[in-house]
Order: sequence, then C-alpha cells, then structure tokens
Amino acid sequence: MNRGKTPLTIDTAVLRDVVDGEWAEARRRIRDLTTDSTLHLPAEGTLEELRAATTAAVAPVAASGLTRLALPVEEGGTGRHAEYIAGFEELVTASPSLQIKAGVQFGLFGGAIMHLGNSEQHEKWLRPALDGELMGSFAMTEIGHGSDVAEVGTTATYDVEAREFVVHTPFRAATKEYIGNAARDARAAVVFAQLITRDVNHGVHAFFVPVRDEAGEPLPGITIEDDGKKGGLLGVDNGRFAFDQVRIPRGNLLTRYGSVAADGEYSSPIESPGRRFFTMLGTLVQGRVSLDGAAVVASKLALDIAVRYAHDRRQFTSTSPVEETRLIDYQRHQRRLMPLIAQTYADAISHDTLLHTFDAVFSGDDTTPEGQELLETQAAGFKALTTWNALDTIQEAREACGGAGFMAENRLVGLHADMDVYVTFEGDNTVLLQLVGKRLLTDYARELKDIDFGGAARLIGAQAAEHTLYRTGVANLGRAIGDLVTASVNDKRVRSGKVQEALLRDRVETMVATVAQALRPAQSKDKASGARLFNENQNELIEAAIAYIELLKWQGLNAEMHRIEDEGNHPEEAKAMRRLRDLFGLTLIERHMGWHLMHGRLPMARARQVGPAIDALCAKLAQNSLDLVDAFGYGPEHRRAPIADGAEAQRQDEARAYYRAARARSDWPADEKELRKRAARR
Amino acid sequence: MNRGKTPLTIDTAVLRDVVDGEWAEARRRIRDLTTDSTLHLPAEGTLEELRAATTAAVAPVAASGLTRLALPVEEGGTGRHAEYIAGFEELVTASPSLQIKAGVQFGLFGGAIMHLGNSEQHEKWLRPALDGELMGSFAMTEIGHGSDVAEVGTTATYDVEAREFVVHTPFRAATKEYIGNAARDARAAVVFAQLITRDVNHGVHAFFVPVRDEAGEPLPGITIEDDGKKGGLLGVDNGRFAFDQVRIPRGNLLTRYGSVAADGEYSSPIESPGRRFFTMLGTLVQGRVSLDGAAVVASKLALDIAVRYAHDRRQFTSTSPVEETRLIDYQRHQRRLMPLIAQTYADAISHDTLLHTFDAVFSGDDTTPEGQELLETQAAGFKALTTWNALDTIQEAREACGGAGFMAENRLVGLHADMDVYVTFEGDNTVLLQLVGKRLLTDYARELKDIDFGGAARLIGAQAAEHTLYRTGVANLGRAIGDLVTASVNDKRVRSGKVQEALLRDRVETMVATVAQALRPAQSKDKASGARLFNENQNELIEAAIAYIELLKWQGLNAEMHRIEDEGNHPEEAKAMRRLRDLFGLTLIERHMGWHLMHGRLPMARARQVGPAIDALCAKLAQNSLDLVDAFGYGPEHRRAPIADGAEAQRQDEARAYYRAARARSDWPADEKELRKRAARR
Repeated sequence: MNRGKTPLTIDTAVLRDVVDGEWAEARRRIRDLTTDSTLHLPAEGTLEELRAATTAAVAPVAASGLTRLALPVEEGGTGRHAEYIAGFEELVTASPSLQIKAGVQFGLFGGAIMHLGNSEQHEKWLRPALDGELMGSFAMTEIGHGSDVAEVGTTATYDVEAREFVVHTPFRAATKEYIGNAARDARAAVVFAQLITRDVNHGVHAFFVPVRDEAGEPLPGITIEDDGKKGGLLGVDNGRFAFDQVRIPRGNLLTRYGSVAADGEYSSPIESPGRRFFTMLGTLVQGRVSLDGAAVVASKLALDIAVRYAHDRRQFTSTSPVEETRLIDYQRHQRRLMPLIAQTYADAISHDTLLHTFDAVFSGDDTTPEGQELLETQAAGFKALTTWNALDTIQEAREACGGAGFMAENRLVGLHADMDVYVTFEGDNTVLLQLVGKRLLTDYARELKDIDFGGAARLIGAQAAEHTLYRTGVANLGRAIGDLVTASVNDKRVRSGKVQEALLRDRVETMVATVAQALRPAQSKDKASGARLFNENQNELIEAAIAYIELLKWQGLNAEMHRIEDEGNHPEEAKAMRRLRDLFGLTLIERHMGWHLMHGRLPMARARQVGPAIDALCAKLAQNSLDLVDAFGYGPEHRRAPIADGAEAQRQDEARAYYRAARARSDWPADEKELRKRAARR
Repeated sequence: MNRGKTPLTIDTAVLRDVVDGEWAEARRRIRDLTTDSTLHLPAEGTLEELRAATTAAVAPVAASGLTRLALPVEEGGTGRHAEYIAGFEELVTASPSLQIKAGVQFGLFGGAIMHLGNSEQHEKWLRPALDGELMGSFAMTEIGHGSDVAEVGTTATYDVEAREFVVHTPFRAATKEYIGNAARDARAAVVFAQLITRDVNHGVHAFFVPVRDEAGEPLPGITIEDDGKKGGLLGVDNGRFAFDQVRIPRGNLLTRYGSVAADGEYSSPIESPGRRFFTMLGTLVQGRVSLDGAAVVASKLALDIAVRYAHDRRQFTSTSPVEETRLIDYQRHQRRLMPLIAQTYADAISHDTLLHTFDAVFSGDDTTPEGQELLETQAAGFKALTTWNALDTIQEAREACGGAGFMAENRLVGLHADMDVYVTFEGDNTVLLQLVGKRLLTDYARELKDIDFGGAARLIGAQAAEHTLYRTGVANLGRAIGDLVTASVNDKRVRSGKVQEALLRDRVETMVATVAQALRPAQSKDKASGARLFNENQNELIEAAIAYIELLKWQGLNAEMHRIEDEGNHPEEAKAMRRLRDLFGLTLIERHMGWHLMHGRLPMARARQVGPAIDALCAKLAQNSLDLVDAFGYGPEHRRAPIADGAEAQRQDEARAYYRAARARSDWPADEKELRKRAARR
C-alpha cells in the first residue's frame, strides 16, 4: 500500500550527526561502553538482585573516566560540562536505573560537593565520590515538601560549645524521602537543612553527613527506611533518612554560599537569603538538563524498536491472499508513529541547544544573570515537555507492538515504567512550567515582576523577580500581532515554514498577553485576592508555557533543517529534515487548531488542508522510517528487543516457507485457490 | 482559593446507585468478598510467589457462587449473564491479575466449553472448570496472528482410522502465545485450530485438549514455554503451547457450530464458514464486555486515591504564610482531575448500557441479528475507549500524587502496569474501532456493504456485510445537517445539552458521510485499488468511530441526568449530574474544537466561551469532589493506598502541631513574623 513514490536515498550518517549533536563523540563512547552486558539490568530478579546489579555497574562508569570530565581543570578534570552530561544521558541504553543511580552518585552527591563545597572538602570527599568509592545520597526532598524545597523542615543548629552542627528531623513530614542510594549503598549524604546559628535561621544550606559505618550499619541517631517497590527504576535503592540530633563537625557545612565561624557568626557572599538559596539551586540544574537528554534517549530506543517491528510484522491480507500487509503500510500506523519520530528529532535537537546554554554558563563563558536564567528556563521547559513526550512515545510504541510489546523481554514496558517518574522528579513538570510561565510574564511586562501573589510567588521561583528581558523573545511583543497574521494569511502554502512559525509564535504571544492583562489588577489587590487571581489564570499560564516551549523546539528543528539545506551537499537528507520539520509543525498546529481558528488566525479552508498534509507527510516519511531510526545510532545490543531484530521476520519466513512447500506437495487444502475462495466467502 | 460558592449537599448513596447501575447488588457482593486480604496480590514477590497467590485466590471466587450465575437454568445455574459479568469486573478491586486469571479460567475456558460445547461435554468439563478444579486455558491467539484469528495456523486433522483429531503446530508462528494459565496451572486448553477432514479445511473450530498430567508435567507432544515477565498482570501465568501431532478423541471437538461424524463427514448448523466463525466468536464477546467494566473499576480506584490525596496534601503557602494551599484548590489540579471524574461517570453509565444489551442477547430476550450486532459494536467501541481512558486516568492520577504516586504501596503504578495490556488484548483497540467504523459506513450507505476491500474486509469483521441498519442511528442521516447547526446556533448557552448533542452528533454524521463519499469509487475498482483507497481513509474512519462512541457515552450520561432530574426528589444530586454532563460534553467539544470550527459548526465567539465554562465547572465540581469519589463505593480496604487514607493528613497535622508548639515556646526563630519576612524577601 505504499503510495508509489520513491523513497529518499538517505545517508544515515548525516542524520546521525544531526541527532547526536555537538557532543556526538561522548555519546558514542558511552554507547560503546553500554554494549557490555554486565552493565545491563537483568529482566527479572528480586529487588536486591536488581539493586546489586545496578550498583556493580557504577564502578565501570567511574572507570570510564566520564565522571572526571566535569572536574575543574585545577583539580585534574577538564571542565567539559556538556560532554559530561551528554555521556551520562546515554547510560539509559544500559538502563534508566543505571543512569539515575550514577546520576545520584556522581551528578547529585558528587555535584553538590563540587559546586557547594570548598577545595579542602573537594580533597576529602569529591575524589572518592567521583571514583565511586564513597557512595552517597543527595537528601533534599522531604515527604512533606516535594517541590517547595525552601521550606524543608530539617534543621542544622550550630552548637558553639561543641563546634558542631546538630542535624535534626523535628517531625515526620520532615523525613528525607525518595532519596536515591539511601536504602542500601550510601555511606554519606549531602543533607539540605535550615541553618540556625545564634538563634537565627539563615535558610537552607547543604551539609555533609555520614550515614552508615564501614559495615553498612546506620550510624547512631540515623534512621534509614527502604522505599521498597516503586513503579520503575527498580535498580535504584530509594529510601528515607530521619535524623535524631545527629552531630557533625562545623567543617561539614558546604561553604560556597554560606559559612559559620567557630564562634557562630554567619557569613555569606550573597546577602539575600532568597537569592542565596536559588543561586545554590542553580548550580544543581545539571540534573534537570540530563533528564531532558535521557528522555530523548528513551524515546529513540522505543521508536527504534516499534519501527523495526512494524517493518517485519504483517497483519491481514490486502491485495494478495498469501502475502499480508506490513504494519508500517497502514495509514493509522503511520499516523501513530511518524509524528513521534518528528517530535523526537525536535527533542534531540532542542536538547543540544540546552547543552550549549549549559556549557556556556558552567564553563564561565557566560556569567551574566540572564545567561543563568535562560539556562533555568530552558532546562525547566524542555525537561517538562521532553519527559512527557517520552512517556507518550514509549506507550504508543508499546501499543503499536501489540501483545509482543507487553512482554518484558521487548523492553518497552520497562522503559515506560522507568521513565514514569522523570515527569515528577527533579522538578515536577507542572511546577516547572509555571516557572517558565512566570518568566514569560515578567519578560512581557516589567510591572508584573513585583506582584506578590502570596505563595504563588514561591511556587514559581524567586529569581524571576530579579531580572527581566532574559531572552524569551516575548519582550518584543510590542509589534502588532496583526503583522504575523498577515504573514500567515498571505502565504498560500500551509506547509510554509513562515506560516508555521507565525502561527506558533502568535499563539504564545497572544496567550502571554492575555494572561498578563488578566493579572494586572493583582497589583492593586491584597495578597489573598492576588493569589486568587493568579490561581484563576494558572491553567492558561501553563498552557502558554507549553506553547512557548513547543515554539522553541520547532525553531530548533527548523534551524537545523536550514543549516543542512544551506550546506547544500546533502539534498536528500535535507528533504527528509524538511518533511520532519513540516510534520512536527503541522502536528502542533493540528493539536491547537481550535485555538488558531477561535482567534481568527487561520481561514477555515486553510485549516482543512492540515489533516491531509499530515497524512501525506506520514506516508512519505514511513518509506524512510528505517533510515530515520537508524540515525538514532543504536544497535541490537542497545535495543535488546527480540522483536526488533529478526525474531518476528524469522517466524514469518518459516510460515511462508511452510505454506509454499505445502502447496507444492498439494496435500494441504488451504492452497492459494482455496484461500481466495475463503476470503471471497467472507 | 475556593470561589466562594457553597458546595452542593450530596447524598452519595444516590450517586452510588447511578455509578453502580442495574447490577449494583452483584458489584457490592464482590466488593465485600475482595475486602479479604488473602485475595489481594502482594505488593512484592517473585513471579512464582505472585502467581501462586493469584491462583490461590481463584478458589474463593468459585466458592462465592459467582461462576455459576451464568450457567443455563437447566444445568443448575440462573442464566443471569449481566450480573455474572458485573460481579467479575469488581474483582479488579482485589487485583487486575485476579480479574484476568478468573476471567481466563471461568469466562474464557469455562465460557468456551459452555457456549461451544454440547451437554455431554458440559457434564464432563464445565462443572469442574467452573468450580476451579479443572484449570484451563483458552488457546486462540498465535504469535503470528494476533487480531486475524480466522487465519490461525494450528491444524486439527481428522484421522478416520483412529477416530481421532491430530492437533498440530505446523510452524513456529502458529505457536499459541500469551495464553493465560498456560505457564503454570492449566491441565487442559480449548484450542482453536483449522478443522480438516477428508482433505477439506472447514475453518477454525474449538477443541478440548489435555495439556498436563496429574503431576503437572506437559503431556507427550506438547511443548509449554513461560512468557516470563510482562509489563503487568504479574499474577497471571501466561505462556505458549506448541503441539506436535497430538491426538485427541473425536469427542473433544466442541460441537455447537460444527461436528465430524465417525466416518469423517463434516456437518454444521451454519453453512457459510465465514458466518460460522464469526457466530462462534460472537458467543465469546463477554470477555470484551467485562474488560470495559474492569477498566471503569480501575479508573474509579485511581481517581478515588488521587482526589483524597489532593484534599490532604498541601503545597506552597498562598494567603497565609503558615497554612499551605491544598492541591485540590489549584486550578490546574482541578483541570487535571475533574474532567476525568466526569468521563469516568460517563464510562460507568455507558458500561451499564452495554450490560443491558449483553443481557438481552444472552438471555434470549433479543435473538435478532441486529441485537447481536449492536452488542458487538457497543462492546468493541466501549472497550476501546474505556480502556484507553483508564490508562490516561491512572497516569494522570499517579502524576497528580507526585513522588508518592510512584511508590508501589500507593497502588497507582501497579494499576497502570496491569491495565496497559487491556488496550491491546481481547481485540486490539485500533482494530475494534475499525469494526465500529465499518458498521457506521454500512449503516450509512447500504451499497458500501458489499465492497470487498481485500484484506481490509477481514480486518473489520465479516458479519457487518450481512445486516445493515442495526441501530447506530447514523442511518437517519438523510435529514439536513443544517437543522442541527441551526439548533446549536440558536441556543445561546454553550452549556445547553441540545447544543452539546448537536455538535457531537453532527461531527459523527459528517465524518461518516465524508468517508463514505471518499470510498464510493472503490466499488468500481479492482481489489488492490479498493484496498488502497480504504487505507487512505483508515485514519478518518477510526476518528469517526471514536466520535461515535464519544457521542454514545455522552448520551448515556445525559439520559441518566435527565432521569434523576425528572424524578425530582434529588435536586442537588441532579445538579451534580448536570455539571458532570456539561463538563464531559464541553471537554469533548474542546478536544475537537478545531473540527467544529473548521467545519463552520460553531461561531468563534461561542467557541471562546468553552474554556472558561470548563474552568468554572471544574472549580464547582472540585468542591464536591470527595462526594463524587465516595459514590464509587470503595473503602480503604479497596483503595489500600496509605496516602489516600490518612498517612498524608497525619504527617501534616504533626508538622503543624510542631510549628505551633515551637512558636509558643518562642525558641524557634522561624516564627510567623520571621516566615512573613522571609516570604517578603523572595
């Protein structure tokens, strides 16, 4: 049932460079590492077996040299931050459990020591942490406070007599919860607690707290509980810490953003406690960045499996009574998978943009507050949409493989279970999108930055109030929206990139302007009324943030397409990129078609072209779908799904051989003629 | 942040009767049974432990008398088919594994013997099957043929000398796959195979085949493999059967729709092999019916947990610096959960409609072919949408509970993992929707019924060609669509039920007419071109089927609302039902807003009212959300999620008590004044 058009002739190496991006080498190095089956999570086993296997895989990661990439040059590292993150993300090909376990150990525990500790502390704890010798936890989240980390209940009170901090969990809701490495492996933890000295609370700071002795037993005053079974990430030993007046030396406070002298005097390079806290959090953004990239890897693996299966699996006869139709040739199947491929290309490319921003800030090339804010906005927005995209993509891939997709051996159900928590940890997606929304608002209208929406202000982050015009581009909204609409109406082709961008951009700008307008009265209201007004526009603000991130993703894909077109030496690959760009853009426009029409941005006749254009693009891209997933750069040792690598094709070949032989022997009644007769009877 | 309106005063018993429907008593009886913790699936354990626990729970189900309800009166049963199914569905409250395990044993294995066997066969096998003494499998699906069951490769060839059938798996793709009870418990299986006698293939028939001896060892010629770990339903022992020339007595053919005399002569009450096969399949529709109801139960449990947590969980301070805002009061949270509650009410009510249809056909009250077709269409369409709804609902509920939702102890991740396969087994949802779509087409235009779309005709079921006008209502499309549009334009209120119905109905009818128009040329084309044309409209046909089922679900909720309004003695509950009806209707209209606008069915100004109307309905319904989930009729012993039943509330109470006491002692620096200062600094 192909449409009789010739597929493009694609050099998949060209597209592979696009998808792998700037730090392709690091990705490929780790992919080589993860072909080693000792790094893989067994398909079955008790929790303890799965955890032990994951722990055992941490050492080879450390030995690979990956974990030292991010170390400052003066401490024996290279300071190559983006390369470090890119490599980490590819650990998903071993298992998401390993990516998270290693992320907890090296990125969170090691990262907190690196970014919040002083050089003496680096000397003592950072090297053993990065070598995987000192296993540790990152204990920020409490059971009573997930997203609102400024309000953790754990206290660290300075005892001037003893020159010690007393770390304490004052009530059960202040128990550190969902903490990776806690249940089994951690010897120490970086604990976030309210620093109290001389009876003044200076806000949240990080402390290095030993939690287990050499024999693995909890130290006195420390209660450790196991979270037990989770929805996924079964190789990670999450658990809880509670502290009963646990004493640690004064030198265990990580001092980059605040220190306490022996006499109890507090000092900090940053005066405002709010700014201090968010600056500290800012150094930990790399976790969010790497989840964005990890989600891309998971989507790629899922699509790789589903597309290969769709080429091998046949179902129902169409034109021939003996040769069944391949799944990939069904229109609905194309409609299910092709837009997800386009989206995954967009996600991969926009993640590379995020890595560039990250690298600039962390290497010190960009030390402006605006650079830091851009990084936080991109990390929040991309992480939110990409992790949701991954869940949707994996689920669709699993359903597209039918019953075979439900078998653990074919990986898809495990990937979904593992990625599930990515949408709510390292920043709940809904909260992250509000951070993005607030940035859009303050960029749009300076006067909105000072509104105190009560608790709502905390919810969406504090730094937003300190800088504006931080590059969302929405600040330029001054120009008439009419311009954009005219642009879109004048261009006849609904597949024009200009039309797509105008529609997506116009939607963001209109939505932001509408919410800003609705919130203006909040300035003259009391705190409670302001908060209520904010809440009444919360949904719209989140939708605006989603629209903005979708636009950024589209722009990234579009720019990459133009780069290849402009280079001129890969015309077929450029054509494929254009089809992906168009499919991604039109899918977004179709998703929000109600909005575009409701606001008079698109004539009805034009709108009706969108569906058929998507159908046509899906049919064309389906012809090259194997190339498109080949470009993801994974082999059978990464997919590890029998149905994607020949099991299905082999079974079908055997069946066909059987029917052919039976017909030749003519002792089989269901020969072709009989089959035709039966088909006709129905 | 409530909107200052008073919540409705709701007698939840009234709504409970609505949700539980006609067979409420059976549901409540089984809910009582499932409070017994020995029926529950342990949260952790090896595959073998989980399977053993599930198997052990089968006996109490049989002992409850449930399994005998469906037996014919003359064989000691009551013939109460819908009551039987309703009871079964509630087994999900013990675990989806038990519902499926029991469904395989009693519904599929027992059901096949009951509906396809003769009275002698009932005597021998049915009673031990329904008592749970004879454990068995239903072996239809093959690894090479999932949805296309008419084409199974397994053969049962009659050997006239030995008076035996020889059951054989001729090639690997013909292996029976994903078969429940196969890996561990089955002693016998009902095997679907091509019946060959005197060198003629009479199509697929069912055979009773012993598979294990008393010691549990596979019988000679039978290879059994374990499917191992799956994405969910870990208590069910799925596996594979392959047969190597396995001999069974002639009497093991289940003879209702075909028998073979000792001399090899084949006879059947139904001449057409196609009709025979689909009539046989028709008797097995109850599996699909019960999955529809099981999915409703799973959605109810998930919402029950998430809504209770949203009332207890607080996050971020809003108007008060010490009292945080409840999740349920956030607009976005309302927008996430309230439409799913409305949808679940619609799903529950439409499932009751399906049970009525099922009961009429199976009790013999409705023996018309149209009744059978209505049943098949409703079962296919409802099952598809309701199971997808359940997956979406459980996922949203899990995310709405944050990290706590990811912990296995809070049930949501397990429910999602278990329900996952419901969307592709007992009829893949995509295939089922094509069956519905084909019915809509033939109802709309008689001349389309005879088109042979090649394999596509097989894909969408054969009986559709035998009857038309079977009650989809689309046959009445003759009247001008203009009428409907006028109705919707004249009524000012976008929340009018007439407007909602007109929009939903108009959409179905227009979509069906459009596809029919596009397919007309197929009549004059060769088979290959016809199939291609069909494929080019496949996506639109499936969308039309979805639109039709959405309309039916809306109509069910609407009718139930009117019933309560008309009775007049429960005005507040009627008001709640009206809000649910409006929210469900407007959510559907919002989802398809692009279509309604693109086709000029809704003025832009009216369309813009839909979003705010949904916001307002969500805010109102949120005030009664505890009542709405109370009406689901589940207690803590069904939810079994600590966060839903006090764990969260208790922790928060302790935290508040601590802060109050600390302030009273005034040795705590973070007193209210200090907190205010800190909040202001940010």
